[in-house]
Amino acid sequence: MLRHTYEGQDCNLARTLEVIGERWSLLIIRSALLGTTRFDGFLGSLDIARNVLSARLTRLVDQGIMERVPYQDKPVRYEYRLTDVGRDLTRAVVALMQWGDRNLPQELGPPRRADHVGCDGAVHVELRCEQCGRAVHDEEVDVVRLR
Amino acid sequence: MLRHTYEGQDCNLARTLEVIGERWSLLIIRSALLGTTRFDGFLGSLDIARNVLSARLTRLVDQGIMERVPYQDKPVRYEYRLTDVGRDLTRAVVALMQWGDRNLPQELGPPRRADHVGCDGAVHVELRCEQCGRAVHDEEVDVVRLR
Repeated sequence: MLRHTYEGQDCNLARTLEVIGERWSLLIIRSALLGTTRFDGFLGSLDIARNVLSARLTRLVDQGIMERVPYQDKPVRYEYRLTDVGRDLTRAVVALMQWGDRNLPQELGPPRRADHVGCDGAVHVELRCEQCGRAVHDEEVDVVRLR
Repeated sequence: MLRHTYEGQDCNLARTLEVIGERWSLLIIRSALLGTTRFDGFLGSLDIARNVLSARLTRLVDQGIMERVPYQDKPVRYEYRLTDVGRDLTRAVVALMQWGDRNLPQELGPPRRADHVGCDGAVHVELRCEQCGRAVHDEEVDVVRLR
């Protein structure tokens, strides 16, 4: 957590960024969504120093985003799994990833895809109005202050 | 841009974070979504130093997220507006904000809401399958490597 990074901001985007906005944190969560669970797995998927990875995982566990679960007895070894709170970041992670797919395109195409398990269709992030039920375009969204 | 922060990561989440992952950048974009356009407006809505704000705005313009548009002639003064590429971050910003609404709740309730212009319903972010057309739960999403 970037402690007090955005102090004075009465905003849940700011609060969210204080939890997951630190360098590497969202990429660790992405690797967990890709199925990585073990320390060495995260280390292999990220160009990150062991001590930084260790600190980030500890922080994510402290924040309730991941949990540390023993997978072996002697010696005890642990793996890291997303909690429901962590998995609830799926929409945000996919939204950021697909913004990159659209706006920072590469010759070889997107390196990852979000699939619908069982159906294998591509999953996309969309905005929907709770009242009228319609899909909402970006320019139809008005972010308003409530206080 | 956090230059080379995530070098070696063949991932569009990493690429996106290199563009907008710098401290304050997403909050500047949030303020723009709330209707702020002028330098002093951003300064008033963020507890940020003038030089940092200036550097961030310049970077966002360089990256094509915002554009600098004159609004006065003598002396020439500029305002900052989201481009289509910047507005395309709406889903990601709302997804992160609403993750905070759900998981970091406050006594007074969420300080901001995303409204559907014209209908005034609340807008939510959801995952949808392109193939079967269904809304998709977090646990039904499989992020897969394509290369």
